[in-house]
Amino acid sequence: MKIQLINPNTSADMTNTMAISARATALPSTQIIPSTPEHGPKSIECAFDEAIASAALLDLIEQGKQQNVDAHIIACFGDPALDAARELADAPVIGIAEAAFQMASLISYRFGVVTTLSRTLPASEHLLLKYGHQTHCCSVRATDIPVLALENIDNQAYQLLKTECLAAIEQDGAEAIVLGCAGMSNLVNQLSKELPIPIIDGVTAAVKLAESLHQLGLQTSKTGQYGKRISKPFIGRYAHWAS
Amino acid sequence: MKIQLINPNTSADMTNTMAISARATALPSTQIIPSTPEHGPKSIECAFDEAIASAALLDLIEQGKQQNVDAHIIACFGDPALDAARELADAPVIGIAEAAFQMASLISYRFGVVTTLSRTLPASEHLLLKYGHQTHCCSVRATDIPVLALENIDNQAYQLLKTECLAAIEQDGAEAIVLGCAGMSNLVNQLSKELPIPIIDGVTAAVKLAESLHQLGLQTSKTGQYGKRISKPFIGRYAHWAS
Amino acid sequence: MKIQLINPNTSADMTNTMAISARATALPSTQIIPSTPEHGPKSIECAFDEAIASAALLDLIEQGKQQNVDAHIIACFGDPALDAARELADAPVIGIAEAAFQMASLISYRFGVVTTLSRTLPASEHLLLKYGHQTHCCSVRATDIPVLALENIDNQAYQLLKTECLAAIEQDGAEAIVLGCAGMSNLVNQLSKELPIPIIDGVTAAVKLAESLHQLGLQTSKTGQYGKRISKPFIGRYAHWAS
Amino acid sequence: MKIQLINPNTSADMTNTMAISARATALPSTQIIPSTPEHGPKSIECAFDEAIASAALLDLIEQGKQQNVDAHIIACFGDPALDAARELADAPVIGIAEAAFQMASLISYRFGVVTTLSRTLPASEHLLLKYGHQTHCCSVRATDIPVLALENIDNQAYQLLKTECLAAIEQDGAEAIVLGCAGMSNLVNQLSKELPIPIIDGVTAAVKLAESLHQLGLQTSKTGQYGKRISKPFIGRYAHWAS
Amino acid sequence: MKIQLINPNTSADMTNTMAISARATALPSTQIIPSTPEHGPKSIECAFDEAIASAALLDLIEQGKQQNVDAHIIACFGDPALDAARELADAPVIGIAEAAFQMASLISYRFGVVTTLSRTLPASEHLLLKYGHQTHCCSVRATDIPVLALENIDNQAYQLLKTECLAAIEQDGAEAIVLGCAGMSNLVNQLSKELPIPIIDGVTAAVKLAESLHQLGLQTSKTGQYGKRISKPFIGRYAHWAS
Amino acid sequence: MKIQLINPNTSADMTNTMAISARATALPSTQIIPSTPEHGPKSIECAFDEAIASAALLDLIEQGKQQNVDAHIIACFGDPALDAARELADAPVIGIAEAAFQMASLISYRFGVVTTLSRTLPASEHLLLKYGHQTHCCSVRATDIPVLALENIDNQAYQLLKTECLAAIEQDGAEAIVLGCAGMSNLVNQLSKELPIPIIDGVTAAVKLAESLHQLGLQTSKTGQYGKRISKPFIGRYAHWAS
Repeated sequence: MKIQLINPNTSADMTNTMAISARATALPSTQIIPSTPEHGPKSIECAFDEAIASAALLDLIEQGKQQNVDAHIIACFGDPALDAARELADAPVIGIAEAAFQMASLISYRFGVVTTLSRTLPASEHLLLKYGHQTHCCSVRATDIPVLALENIDNQAYQLLKTECLAAIEQDGAEAIVLGCAGMSNLVNQLSKELPIPIIDGVTAAVKLAESLHQLGLQTSKTGQYGKRISKPFIGRYAHWAS
Repeated sequence: MKIQLINPNTSADMTNTMAISARATALPSTQIIPSTPEHGPKSIECAFDEAIASAALLDLIEQGKQQNVDAHIIACFGDPALDAARELADAPVIGIAEAAFQMASLISYRFGVVTTLSRTLPASEHLLLKYGHQTHCCSVRATDIPVLALENIDNQAYQLLKTECLAAIEQDGAEAIVLGCAGMSNLVNQLSKELPIPIIDGVTAAVKLAESLHQLGLQTSKTGQYGKRISKPFIGRYAHWAS
Repeated sequence: MKIQLINPNTSADMTNTMAISARATALPSTQIIPSTPEHGPKSIECAFDEAIASAALLDLIEQGKQQNVDAHIIACFGDPALDAARELADAPVIGIAEAAFQMASLISYRFGVVTTLSRTLPASEHLLLKYGHQTHCCSVRATDIPVLALENIDNQAYQLLKTECLAAIEQDGAEAIVLGCAGMSNLVNQLSKELPIPIIDGVTAAVKLAESLHQLGLQTSKTGQYGKRISKPFIGRYAHWAS
Repeated sequence: MKIQLINPNTSADMTNTMAISARATALPSTQIIPSTPEHGPKSIECAFDEAIASAALLDLIEQGKQQNVDAHIIACFGDPALDAARELADAPVIGIAEAAFQMASLISYRFGVVTTLSRTLPASEHLLLKYGHQTHCCSVRATDIPVLALENIDNQAYQLLKTECLAAIEQDGAEAIVLGCAGMSNLVNQLSKELPIPIIDGVTAAVKLAESLHQLGLQTSKTGQYGKRISKPFIGRYAHWAS
Repeated sequence: MKIQLINPNTSADMTNTMAISARATALPSTQIIPSTPEHGPKSIECAFDEAIASAALLDLIEQGKQQNVDAHIIACFGDPALDAARELADAPVIGIAEAAFQMASLISYRFGVVTTLSRTLPASEHLLLKYGHQTHCCSVRATDIPVLALENIDNQAYQLLKTECLAAIEQDGAEAIVLGCAGMSNLVNQLSKELPIPIIDGVTAAVKLAESLHQLGLQTSKTGQYGKRISKPFIGRYAHWAS
Repeated sequence: MKIQLINPNTSADMTNTMAISARATALPSTQIIPSTPEHGPKSIECAFDEAIASAALLDLIEQGKQQNVDAHIIACFGDPALDAARELADAPVIGIAEAAFQMASLISYRFGVVTTLSRTLPASEHLLLKYGHQTHCCSVRATDIPVLALENIDNQAYQLLKTECLAAIEQDGAEAIVLGCAGMSNLVNQLSKELPIPIIDGVTAAVKLAESLHQLGLQTSKTGQYGKRISKPFIGRYAHWAS
């Protein structure tokens, strides 16, 4: 099967990082197609960045559709434009936050989320509420490491991340940790070795869920909320969507 | 004071309609500055339309900021990009759904929402949940009138709208009705005359809340979730946001 | 328009304080009619005080009705007898807690409440739940300053209040502060100058919402929960309500 | 033990009716002291009636306190002034709605409430939310029988009540029925015979809970929310509360 | 009346302890029939223990049924197999956690739970959610005293228990304490003397509720969720249930 | 990898049916080890059946552990003894209801559940609440087909099932259907062909999630709620658990 792995920010280095993680976990028969937008912010760290990134992300979904991919992954922890992408796509679309929360709730009673900037905490809490996982989450913590600093994470930042994971475990009772940024996917192995509880990365979790849906023959339902978008005029830089 | 009234879709006729409503309700000292994007869909009827409209909407917020407006109104019932706009703006930003729900909860115990397409119902329910008004709302109903058909609404469509309002009252116990589309703002007067309960339009409600915040000297808090966005590279058609 | 500003406790000094705040914020065309009950407690600090104050408060609503006021404000942070007053009145009735929560949720993602006595904390939490604002409130803190001490607040008490506001900001992440007592309305200006986030007073917020509803032509819905009370015998000191 | 059975409305006939029910269920060693206010409405059917009845109800609580009763029951389905009464009293205070909901949840998975007027439905729903029993309640239905008509209920009204009970069972899946008015306590026996599920009356339920708390040696906690009220001036018709 | 008091673990000493408490509180006319299973764990401290204990517990319910008991009490704080027991029994079945939460919510606004092992905390929280009492509970604390150590509790363990009760009061605002283990029922008296707030034991609370239901003539509803189990084949060590 | 597929009821025919489904979906490298208990009910249709089935189910988990399986699936829609099994096992344990809800929420906004007997509806609703999926579920419907009748389902029963699926779609707005019984897993293909929306079976969904967790290297967290059970005496027919 073909999985389009969309990095919604314009940092190609980050796309590479997550593609390495994705390929390491994918089945041999799964082809990972990494995808980086040509328009938008270099990192996504607030609602503004997310709103700007959304339209270019949908262009990538359309590209993936033309390439007949069997699933799309939106690899940014805010799951930007997930509902819109599900309307546009025929194949399933999976957000990495939703994927990680699902895996965490299968192997722990209460999990924690450790993410980048403090200002993204309410966004994580909103996703937990939207998906229904807030009762399973006992801790949402920020490291205040900027997203782009994760690309070449130094030891100081790594220790900061590990410290917050430990605080989630010891102070908040977290039994598993969800890493709250696609850019952390290359740190899972080391953290898993150094911490006494499971560490979950949304990118690899999403790859497995995409494969699962494909093997189950399940596609996004097109009858209700995720039904095909309505044809209408679009102008200006979005005129290509007109129909 | 100056209020920027943003119609997030590209239909200038709809901008005019809502500007007439807004001016009719505004204080004499309030200047309404209508604003229509140059890019995007002619109407917003699903998550896809909303996602595409968001970036151009933020360009308009920036324009309003340059014009030193005292408040911004996002006049689309999905309150698109509201959090992003609050990060970007210095002045308060008000969504018409949030505004209408607030007014409704002051004058009724249980209100109903009557909106356009069935497929937008979950989006309305999500907003009710997000804002905390779901316990005050007893009815969310669709007319399946497309947004653009509201511009020159014929009698048949009007009767359809009225029928759903009556159903909300009689079957669901609604004590007030929130109209679920900015394009319905010119129908408030007639519906108010013909129905036994208050009818609430978000555009005019938002104008009053914008004036209220201004007179109270209240601005969006910039310390937490709505703090200023972080400077970073942007490329492609969003390169103007780079800093 | 005429707004009846009801202080539900019998302290005329407090009525004066809040009338000054209300007039300072009201439009020039708005007449503020302060109203103090002849029966009841000098301050309202628990459910008992609130229950005793309710009947006299409803006498004042009836008085306002006779004077053809266009809106009634109940200026006590517990919003006592709000539902009953809405049944009795024709014009809208606004509680200052509900008003303050609404304004706070328009300009912050998470607000805090700083109030008087610790024993009123559960009452504030109950109002947040009832109105649906509990998800937007991250902090409810008491200063343990008695209500009447607010009339001539000394520096020590002011510092105590400021300290709790700072704790709400720094420890709980509050992005705006709602002052939890009508008697604090004269402290808004000083606190706003000394603290980095918006400070919201329910009295002035309610004045603006009353003006807003009036200008929108909205009245309390009389069809359901707030429908006119049923005529019936009343005896003893409430015989004047018989009909 | 001595239980004060307070009927918060001024209808002595209704007090007698409920006293008969209470005595029929009480232990031989329990003395039921019926209590009717000298001030207030003849029946309680809306928030206005409830607010007016509250102060006189608290006078009765004080009377009961002087008589050293071991528990107070507030026998009106809205549980008026319950929190205030708990602050005032030393002995436990039990509301009949809370009592009935508790008994219902012990013997059924989902119960229904059948009450008097439609306009009281939101009040019942609010109590269910406040006490936490909303998940156990699958049906809240009104008969639109006025409270006073229950005193000498004719066959037509009885059939109406039975019809709504049956609808709650058959349409809503109710496994037990809570009768939503103290004035229905004399109908429990007949309804229990004619309906296939348990029928619960709050008056008798409250008597049993009052006896239970007494035998367990449990009193209202006076350390927090229900701590003693604060001494302060009261004027006018409530001057007797000054201290 | 006859109440079957089931200790779901196989420790006969613990059955004796709780039978002493139960008898001390029961009416003279109430016969307490203690019941200990012949199969299962010596204490119940996790979901595994609870699952193993359930089948033997249901054998005891059947025994009680043969003895025509008027109520069954399941005296383990996890309320194991409560729904199953209600399906099986004709008489009411009461769990001690549900009973204790009900009594606590009648005499306090916010109560705390102090229990045995930390690992049982999520189970307590789940029960609070299931029964709807989570809003009334402000504190769930573990002492990490093993259940069997309660049989001959030494002073050190008692002090530990008292310390957590005090922390619930002082740090969490608990106004009453629910003891989270049937094995603590003999400590209620001493703790009540030494602590300033009511202490509630589920065993005695359940005895009173069982007597209350009996005197009210209320039985478990057999029409819905608790309807009689369906006849079907059972094999192996459960063949005696076949029918 | 080796997946133990546990049918918690004693019907070997049903075990075979679900094993066929499981093998058809599993990867070639996955070995499905079907497992049927020697003790317990032939079908699980109420809380009583579930409680009796739990201990034998845990014996099977222990067997699987001895066989070094890499995951255990509990293939009964009530997810019986799931928490207990997670405490006992080292490998992940997946319940088919949780698995099906997760898959449904990835491909639909609102899904429906169509199950066997009406009396199991509250159990399904409880699971939705426990797992946090209640906001995504718009419909829970029963067919009143007994579980064992599914083994050789005739056309009449199949039509009944299809009718309820259609009602969920048309009346309740379901965008996907979760089949509420492991015994329905062989009907997925036919229903998927005849209905316009995705049909989800928990058995196959659980197989894919088990494979996913294995490939991600994730195991049940043993630090908190699912930590190893505490050694203690067990007697009678459970003496083999003593340690």
